[in-house]
Amino acid sequence: MSMNTFGHLFRVTTWGESHGPALGATVDGCPPGVPLDEAMLQVWLDKRRPGQNKNTTQRQEPDQVRILSGVFDGQTTGTTIQLMIENTDQRSKDYGEIAQTFRPGHADITYHQKYGLRDYRGGGRSSARETAARVAAGGVARAALKALAPKLEVIGYMTTMGEMEIDRSAFDWDAIEQNDFWIPQDEATAKSWEAYLTKVRKDKNSVGGAIEVVARNVPAGIGAPIYAKLDTDLAAAMMSINAVKGVEIGEGMAAARLSGTDNADEIFMGPNGPEYSSNHAGGILGGISTGQDVVVRFAVKPTSSILTPRASIRLDGSATEVVTKGRHDPCVGIRAVPVGEAMMACVILDHILLHRGQVGGSVGETRGKIG
Amino acid sequence: MSMNTFGHLFRVTTWGESHGPALGATVDGCPPGVPLDEAMLQVWLDKRRPGQNKNTTQRQEPDQVRILSGVFDGQTTGTTIQLMIENTDQRSKDYGEIAQTFRPGHADITYHQKYGLRDYRGGGRSSARETAARVAAGGVARAALKALAPKLEVIGYMTTMGEMEIDRSAFDWDAIEQNDFWIPQDEATAKSWEAYLTKVRKDKNSVGGAIEVVARNVPAGIGAPIYAKLDTDLAAAMMSINAVKGVEIGEGMAAARLSGTDNADEIFMGPNGPEYSSNHAGGILGGISTGQDVVVRFAVKPTSSILTPRASIRLDGSATEVVTKGRHDPCVGIRAVPVGEAMMACVILDHILLHRGQVGGSVGETRGKIG
Amino acid sequence: MSMNTFGHLFRVTTWGESHGPALGATVDGCPPGVPLDEAMLQVWLDKRRPGQNKNTTQRQEPDQVRILSGVFDGQTTGTTIQLMIENTDQRSKDYGEIAQTFRPGHADITYHQKYGLRDYRGGGRSSARETAARVAAGGVARAALKALAPKLEVIGYMTTMGEMEIDRSAFDWDAIEQNDFWIPQDEATAKSWEAYLTKVRKDKNSVGGAIEVVARNVPAGIGAPIYAKLDTDLAAAMMSINAVKGVEIGEGMAAARLSGTDNADEIFMGPNGPEYSSNHAGGILGGISTGQDVVVRFAVKPTSSILTPRASIRLDGSATEVVTKGRHDPCVGIRAVPVGEAMMACVILDHILLHRGQVGGSVGETRGKIG
Amino acid sequence: MSMNTFGHLFRVTTWGESHGPALGATVDGCPPGVPLDEAMLQVWLDKRRPGQNKNTTQRQEPDQVRILSGVFDGQTTGTTIQLMIENTDQRSKDYGEIAQTFRPGHADITYHQKYGLRDYRGGGRSSARETAARVAAGGVARAALKALAPKLEVIGYMTTMGEMEIDRSAFDWDAIEQNDFWIPQDEATAKSWEAYLTKVRKDKNSVGGAIEVVARNVPAGIGAPIYAKLDTDLAAAMMSINAVKGVEIGEGMAAARLSGTDNADEIFMGPNGPEYSSNHAGGILGGISTGQDVVVRFAVKPTSSILTPRASIRLDGSATEVVTKGRHDPCVGIRAVPVGEAMMACVILDHILLHRGQVGGSVGETRGKIG
Repeated sequence: MSMNTFGHLFRVTTWGESHGPALGATVDGCPPGVPLDEAMLQVWLDKRRPGQNKNTTQRQEPDQVRILSGVFDGQTTGTTIQLMIENTDQRSKDYGEIAQTFRPGHADITYHQKYGLRDYRGGGRSSARETAARVAAGGVARAALKALAPKLEVIGYMTTMGEMEIDRSAFDWDAIEQNDFWIPQDEATAKSWEAYLTKVRKDKNSVGGAIEVVARNVPAGIGAPIYAKLDTDLAAAMMSINAVKGVEIGEGMAAARLSGTDNADEIFMGPNGPEYSSNHAGGILGGISTGQDVVVRFAVKPTSSILTPRASIRLDGSATEVVTKGRHDPCVGIRAVPVGEAMMACVILDHILLHRGQVGGSVGETRGKIG
Repeated sequence: MSMNTFGHLFRVTTWGESHGPALGATVDGCPPGVPLDEAMLQVWLDKRRPGQNKNTTQRQEPDQVRILSGVFDGQTTGTTIQLMIENTDQRSKDYGEIAQTFRPGHADITYHQKYGLRDYRGGGRSSARETAARVAAGGVARAALKALAPKLEVIGYMTTMGEMEIDRSAFDWDAIEQNDFWIPQDEATAKSWEAYLTKVRKDKNSVGGAIEVVARNVPAGIGAPIYAKLDTDLAAAMMSINAVKGVEIGEGMAAARLSGTDNADEIFMGPNGPEYSSNHAGGILGGISTGQDVVVRFAVKPTSSILTPRASIRLDGSATEVVTKGRHDPCVGIRAVPVGEAMMACVILDHILLHRGQVGGSVGETRGKIG
Repeated sequence: MSMNTFGHLFRVTTWGESHGPALGATVDGCPPGVPLDEAMLQVWLDKRRPGQNKNTTQRQEPDQVRILSGVFDGQTTGTTIQLMIENTDQRSKDYGEIAQTFRPGHADITYHQKYGLRDYRGGGRSSARETAARVAAGGVARAALKALAPKLEVIGYMTTMGEMEIDRSAFDWDAIEQNDFWIPQDEATAKSWEAYLTKVRKDKNSVGGAIEVVARNVPAGIGAPIYAKLDTDLAAAMMSINAVKGVEIGEGMAAARLSGTDNADEIFMGPNGPEYSSNHAGGILGGISTGQDVVVRFAVKPTSSILTPRASIRLDGSATEVVTKGRHDPCVGIRAVPVGEAMMACVILDHILLHRGQVGGSVGETRGKIG
Repeated sequence: MSMNTFGHLFRVTTWGESHGPALGATVDGCPPGVPLDEAMLQVWLDKRRPGQNKNTTQRQEPDQVRILSGVFDGQTTGTTIQLMIENTDQRSKDYGEIAQTFRPGHADITYHQKYGLRDYRGGGRSSARETAARVAAGGVARAALKALAPKLEVIGYMTTMGEMEIDRSAFDWDAIEQNDFWIPQDEATAKSWEAYLTKVRKDKNSVGGAIEVVARNVPAGIGAPIYAKLDTDLAAAMMSINAVKGVEIGEGMAAARLSGTDNADEIFMGPNGPEYSSNHAGGILGGISTGQDVVVRFAVKPTSSILTPRASIRLDGSATEVVTKGRHDPCVGIRAVPVGEAMMACVILDHILLHRGQVGGSVGETRGKIG
């Protein structure tokens, strides 16, 4: 309901600006008794952290997260969890030019039009730095999921970056953690992606990317009708990430071109319950999980912060050209992988709690028995 | 927050099952003093209504909407508006087989798994009949928009249907209302779409479709950060429609393949404020409207209710084959056009109210002046 | 959260005006599998229904409730339950005078000031008729509680009516259903209340009243910190009822005059868990239930609709005198008893679901074992 | 809606435990362009701060508030405002006994029963220290009100403390800030209250108190029907404060004993709009403000943390006696005055925003003209 909050029962409110003293997430509704400490969150923040290799922005931020409330003796207490990440590398230089100019493709102009003022330092609230808070909150969700549904996994990876695209016939889950792009591909492919991105950067340009996030071992029956559908909430969660322009579940936009016979996931009885011949549905039917992998894909546009000059205007309406010199990612999609994972973890946990509240029963135990 | 409600200040709760006595929408938060009567809603319901031509289901429903509360002397009073549509053509036949069988690609199985029981008559709550309630609520939103922002228009049309795709170089706004598919194309093209769909139906098959909805003359500055972004809410709104598997804003998924130079919408000062060289962003930057057209696209999967047999299981786990004989649309995407429009109208109105509450000022008056 | 909705997971939206075609409640979040039919709701509506004896308004309304959705084969399905009560005895007479005049102590003037227009027929949305919808929703809550927590009981009764006050030393639970005032007192006392009220009515006057609602066998551990405290939600629920001006939990306002030694409920270990020497706390500590009786009390002001003339103004600002001739209750507090019960049932159910969602475990089974 | 959040558009989420590193408030929905700095908040925190005189707890906390986000160049930006207060005087001593024992009248036992664990240090989340966060958030609300409705004032004072009660015939607004009890009475009366409280403390006891909060110059028309009534939200806001057991609007519980002729606030036309002969209604009719003073009163129970032994049990069920030796307020009601003011400021601001969103128009400008 509110502007900066998402979730039904597991509710995350993020706060903070790019160049303010700190940013963070206020997490309400985490179940009690979940083992949690800062190190469990830090591992995910380190994955998103900038400055780790030449493919991402060179801004150096330790992104050290602190838990200020809601945890006692190493366990969550059921009360509000406050997560804070201090900003250390803000480089508070002269912002005179940025303060007066609107970058094309950026939220500078719309924030100004909406609010009549904006924190222009580093993009303020509209900076992708806000996603660090999401990743921290996602870490809490993962900790709770570990306690409630130990087999459940959330894994993200890139599928395209500009002209590059993964080869699904050579999909390798184990390779994802082995390269800078989180692609499920061998080292040679990763190198070719790197060469491509280097060229993009040298061309003073940027590229978009697509990320797929998969949740495995999600119990059947999670989700709810109409406006709290699992796919509805996933679409909102992914579209809320900076620079995202499209969201797909299962077949996604391609479903528009399929026939009913091609698209049907036929059902068979397996040893542990229903099984399916395929997963065009992306693990969701009628907004409710089938027990198959939940598959979400989203597209991140190329960053508008590039070294190539683009036409724009100043606050006074005068024409100008904008060249963004700062430390920017040539493909912001790369660092969107852990952000997408965090959102998936939050949404799945939220729906497990919602199901438990509305329908009851243990997680993983579906109410309606079959066979 | 709740399962069957959407919106922040303009809140719509839908209710009703396909074969129950009635369905409808409970609309809370409509501003007072908006001229409203049943005829103003009926026009939109008639657009969505089944049985109008051979391209849609032959179920005959007058879909007559009644306003039960919230309107007095032809104006809204600011209190809850209850909209009711009685079901008349339920054909309450023998449901024995349907009650025991799960249709592939349908919510039958997940509703059963979630709730332990389901209203199997015509799909119950998961039926696309629920969208009639959305269209009625969308009619209220349109009436309020007419009062608050008279120039604002919401127009939807199909862009693809299976193998068919519109030719954007021959885009004709005026043609949209002239054909059964709501395509912005000439009559000959509409005939070719009809021929294609006839073949699909004769092949005992179905096809998906994509719908684009455009809102024109949306004031700049509508939307809000992070989790009430205009695009976030649009993504959720469209993904909540039955059978939708993907949502795009502006360039959508294609943004993943673009470069920063190609994707940038350059800014120029026009006579009435900022203007843009292009609209890759779909009218939204940082979750806030730019004043350009707001462009949303969504994909509807082919209905799983087809005459070609598909493998499935029964409640007792035994194998079966499902052939859906009922009166079903060969392309449910067609009737999703007015539904997408309704959702767009609701979201835009909601954000105008939200902006007015949080930021103040009249609609159309941006707080931050430029030039 | 929205204007006409209450509840976290069990969410009730009421709609309808006093003299519109119908009124009702949209109930979202009722658990599935709860046995429910119209007769189960009608019993509570009959309790609130006007025109039953001379102590309440003579308006004749059958208040027949219809379930339009969310129930199938005698059980709730987990989807939205729509409850509708048609208005039959609206007496749509000449409203000329009422339309132009503001009754003192009534919402006429504030609705006009807020909205610029109002449905003046019978008070429109501000009429106590709205409470019929709450009672219907409360019937759904009671049905769900019966399924989830069979021993839980919700019982309301009057404690004062103008100058009359119950004698707690002669408290008789069984007598509550035996008299027109729902007082826990013998027949002679009820007769003296009736004599008193007859005199009030003959004096062209009205009186206020206080109602106490008790929930017994509420499991310990229900409630939540800070803004979803059980007492917070009960206070809001009761204060939302028409004409209520005060709400108390346990000792209530009297707690302000007590000392810490007098107010302490000492704790002892009983055979089935903790027991208390007293219940000054009204069954709630820190917003969470102790397992003792939950005790809420609220005051209903005397209705402003009386036959004695009171000074007021007309829409044009001119002075007038108002005498309300309609069919009004001399003590609206009497019919507030079933309304208070309904609100208590809704709040308790909502918190049981919220607890189940956030903390898990079966109802009645506290997570923290003692002894 | 969620556990630790209140408000519709102006939403406050509090976080933090008594003896954790920090506590604070996450404020979402503050309008942009409001002048705000830490000093403007500190003044209210200093009013609530403990250790200032012998009538309140001797715990020494500077309660220095920091603004971590949402403010730029001395103005609010419309984004989340994070307020943090570090705890400095936690005295992390041996908690062995407290960890095992439940204090009578305290939330120790219910938090344990609900969550299975609790942060027992200083009461953890259930400590009245949480109210510091509310006061900080209330400071933001006051700053926004100053910008939106400059004449609006919010003033709180005690009306009773145990056996002491103010004399309304000697009511002196100017005296409120001149004494330690915030009573509207002369110095001699304040000295008699102090003597009384000294005796209570020497008797190893505590007393309750009642606080009245008045909002003056609230525009007519603020509030909303049924479940967002102004009085509903005020009742919830006050009842959510630690130790509060009763809430009254205007006549409050006394309304139950009044007759309709006595209770009616007659209406006259004044030079600037409607005026009333009295204010039994406490400035609210039908949940909407009349333009008169909004008057709320609440009762705070005597603290259960006293030096007189009370019977209780330990975690293992064994009997014990509890004597609370810590630094506790003999009347927690005193420090509840600024807390009540903060809640009133938050609720009034929230409703001004809600009205602006739903109905439109400037603050103070009612839509419906009279006269």
